[in-house]
Order: sequence, then C-alpha cells, then structure tokens
Amino acid sequence: MDLAIQIDQEIAARTQAVNQFVEKYLSDMELPAGSAISELRKSMLYSATNGGKRFRPVLSLLVGELFGAGKERILPFAAAVEMIHTYSLIHDDLPCMDNDDMRRGKPTNHKVFGEDFALLAGDALLTEAFMLIAENYGDNSFLVGHLTRLLSSAAGIRGMVGGQAIDLRAGDKQMSLEELTHLHRLKTGALIRVAVEGAAVIAGAKPTEIESLKKFGEGLGLAFQVADDVLDHGEKGQDLRSFTGILGLEGTKTYLKDVSASTLAELHKVSADAPLLEYLISFNQNRQV
Amino acid sequence: MDLAIQIDQEIAARTQAVNQFVEKYLSDMELPAGSAISELRKSMLYSATNGGKRFRPVLSLLVGELFGAGKERILPFAAAVEMIHTYSLIHDDLPCMDNDDMRRGKPTNHKVFGEDFALLAGDALLTEAFMLIAENYGDNSFLVGHLTRLLSSAAGIRGMVGGQAIDLRAGDKQMSLEELTHLHRLKTGALIRVAVEGAAVIAGAKPTEIESLKKFGEGLGLAFQVADDVLDHGEKGQDLRSFTGILGLEGTKTYLKDVSASTLAELHKVSADAPLLEYLISFNQNRQV
Repeated sequence: MDLAIQIDQEIAARTQAVNQFVEKYLSDMELPAGSAISELRKSMLYSATNGGKRFRPVLSLLVGELFGAGKERILPFAAAVEMIHTYSLIHDDLPCMDNDDMRRGKPTNHKVFGEDFALLAGDALLTEAFMLIAENYGDNSFLVGHLTRLLSSAAGIRGMVGGQAIDLRAGDKQMSLEELTHLHRLKTGALIRVAVEGAAVIAGAKPTEIESLKKFGEGLGLAFQVADDVLDHGEKGQDLRSFTGILGLEGTKTYLKDVSASTLAELHKVSADAPLLEYLISFNQNRQV
Repeated sequence: MDLAIQIDQEIAARTQAVNQFVEKYLSDMELPAGSAISELRKSMLYSATNGGKRFRPVLSLLVGELFGAGKERILPFAAAVEMIHTYSLIHDDLPCMDNDDMRRGKPTNHKVFGEDFALLAGDALLTEAFMLIAENYGDNSFLVGHLTRLLSSAAGIRGMVGGQAIDLRAGDKQMSLEELTHLHRLKTGALIRVAVEGAAVIAGAKPTEIESLKKFGEGLGLAFQVADDVLDHGEKGQDLRSFTGILGLEGTKTYLKDVSASTLAELHKVSADAPLLEYLISFNQNRQV
C-alpha cells in the first residue's frame, strides 16, 4: 500500500476513536429531566461531532503512543482538549464575536439552537472538560491536579481566552512578528502545546522528553498558523495580522520551512521513530487547503 | 452589644475575607503581556468585586468552621464557587440572555467592557475556578478530584447551566410546584448545595454529616428562592414561574416556614451550636429585601 494512504488511514482511525469517545460521552451523560436539557445536549453534540480533523486530540493519542500509552488512557484527556476547542469555536462564532453563520459547511451553533443555547452549550462543554479529567485521572493526585492546571492555563486568560482578547483589540495597526507570534502562541498555540504536554505526562514521559515535546507542540501550532497565512495569502492580501503581511509570501514560506524544521528536530530528540507525528509536520508544510 | 449587630459583624468579616481573597487572586495572577489582557483582567475584577453578599462563599467558610477548618483552607474553594457564580451572572446579563443593563446599581459587565469582553471574562472566570482547585488542593488526590467533580456537576449541564436552559425554554405555561422546584434546584440550588458540601468535605466532615449538610444547603437555596418570590409578589403578580403563582401569597409564606424549619432541622443534626448558619435561615425567612 502507498505510504501516504497508509498514514492517512492510521490518522483516520485515531480521529474516529476520538469522535466515538466524545459522542458516547455526551450521549451517555446522565442528565436531569427536561426537554430543554435534552435540547442543550443536542446543541453540545451538534458542535462536538461536526466532523473536524480532531487535530489536537489525535496529537494527544499519537504522543501517548510514543511512550506506549494505550488510547483508553489518553482518550479522556484528548476529549477534554477537544471539548475546550469546540466551546471556543461556538463562542467565537457568536454575533458579539466573529458573527459567523457557517462553520465547516454547516450552520453555526447559534444559527441552529439560538444564541442563548449556543452560549450555554459552550459554557457546558468547558465545564465538562474538567469533569472528564476529574473522573478519569482522579486515582492519581499528581495527574488530576497537573492536567487541570495545564488545561486551565491553556484555556483561560493565560492562554486561549487571553489570545482572543488580544485579537479583538488589535485594531488596524500593523503587528510586528513578535506581536503576531505572541498572539498565536496564546490563541491557538497554548491548547495545542498542552494537548501534547498532557499526553506526555499521562504516558509517563521523562522531564527532558516533556520539555522537547512542549517545544514540538508549540512549533507545530505555530507552523499551522503560518501555513494558514500562506494559503490565505491570495484571499485577504496584506493583512495587518498575518505572517505574509509582515514577511511577504516568500519570506513566510521560508519561515514555515524553518519552523517546521526546528519542530521536527524537537521531535527527533524524543523519538526517531514517529512517522505519524512527522507526517503532521510535513503534511502541514505542503498542504494546499 | 446587640446580638443581631454582632452577628452582622461576624458575617461581614467573612464577606470581607472572601472579597480580599478574590481581589488579590485576580490582581496577582501572572499574565502574558498585552493591554487587551490587562483590560480583560479588569473586566473579570469589575464583576468579581462588585459588592455582592458573597452568600455562597460565606456559607462555605461557616460550614468549614463547624469542623474547625481555618478560613485559609476553605477560601480557595469558596472563591472558586464565587467565581463560577460571577461568571454565570455576566453571561446571564448578556443581550442574548436576560439583556440586563444594570446589576447591583452598576452597569453590567458588557455595558462597560463590551459584549465580547464580557463573554470572555465569564469564560475566563469559569476556567480560573478550576485552576484554584488544582492549585490549592492538589496535595490530596481525593480532594482535588472530588471538588472538581462537585463544581463541574453543579455548574454545568447537570446543574446551573441545565437550570438556565430550562428557564429559557419554559415559555408561558404555568409550572407545577414540582417543575418549579426542579428548576431552582438546578439553576441556583446546585451551586449553593456544593458550596456547603465542598467545604464540609475539605474540613473532614463524616459522611452522615455531609449528607445532612447537603440537605441543609439544598433547603437554604430553596428557601432563598421562595423568600424572593414572597418579596417580589406585589411587583410581578401571579408569575407563571413563581411559588406565589402556584401556592398564593399565604401558601408561599407557609411553604417558606416549612422549608426553613426542615433546613434548620438538618443543620441541628450536625451541630446545635451554629448561630451564624442558623441566622442565615432566620434572616432569610424574615427578610424585607
């Protein structure tokens, strides 16, 4: 079989495992009575099962595998990361934020369930992420506290929410490379890094390995943003908050190559045999969509 | 000194301890650079320090004291409960929810900081609540997991957010007493119960004591709602979702007396010497505002 097809299938199997876990968890939650609560569950499921790549949780599974951790051990954490990502998309799409009507070819949550239920679905998904951690890693005092700290830090004002705040108030001034990198590190990088770091911690990686994997996660998150800007270059032109706006198209391609190379180097410090994680780097570097 | 004044001062001292803790925590958080992030912190502080009664966290402190737990041990949990309460008020006030311009005599969060930052401030406060638990009870594997589960359950779709969903979709039909009690048990009761239960757990209460205190917390939460309806009776008349609308004014006063009595009985199962907690029950039963 062609190697690329084989790798695609390997990734798809993990995406499916995440989808099944998230769908089962939200469907099986025991809830109080009430048709409104059933509707809220539907709203949570609508956004949590809408066919994304599951980039973050798949990353968690692959990192766990580096250290021999089975997917059952990593999946609850991976699902928590994905629920936090999903909640952020629901809130981001609201009229008071980006006001988006469509996401991944389907109406956004508030277009289907109303703004009030979209707001609540986001709130509930964020809350449920911490339940997943407590329920599944509560046998280990270090893990449950550490994972909660990692997720809270990556999701809150120190991370994702802080990045959104910067993005909202950036106005129409040209950002420097440093400012733009800071923005992305918080807005999307923090949760991607923690998807990697948390899985490594659960799987029992050594401190030096965790340090390298944090840099790998950060680099991968940054590389995805840079690649996005390369792909969007024709569409939005010299955006004030894009790498192409600062470095130009060719400069940005070079930057993507450099970031990808250093990200790969961090991975190699931990493992020389991680074809699927290597693939994520090279796929991103060469992707056309 | 008059007993009522002395009790007021005792309660006020605890309210102040909560206020100081919350303000210090949010002010001292180490945050990434950026004026937008500073503004978001201000938005969080604006709502978290706006002079409420601090009913829930004060309740936690008082329950802790029943078992000899110092306030330093209970305050982080109490503050987490209060931050969750504050986040729910910020999101509730948003135009897509209750659309309130004023709260406690001051403009609501979104009126001062904009809807986008109000949304993010709520998200960040909810996220930070779990950080507080992980940072302060992480030395005890049982506690950190248990408190996280309690808070997540009380705050999410199983509790407060679920109750908000029911409230939003209740429409204009008359609720039965059972339906109204179910609504309040989720929307406000769950977090009040957990403010009591969590403090009892931290303070090392026995299982039978915890069971009684859960009922005490539930009863107190219900009694506050019933007393609210008595006070609001003249204003909104026969509301479809009020105890007075179902039981009439006199019937509701009798119900308040019954609920208060059974709440006191649960407290007495745990302690015959809890004047401040007893005061909360009688104050509520007789309050004029």
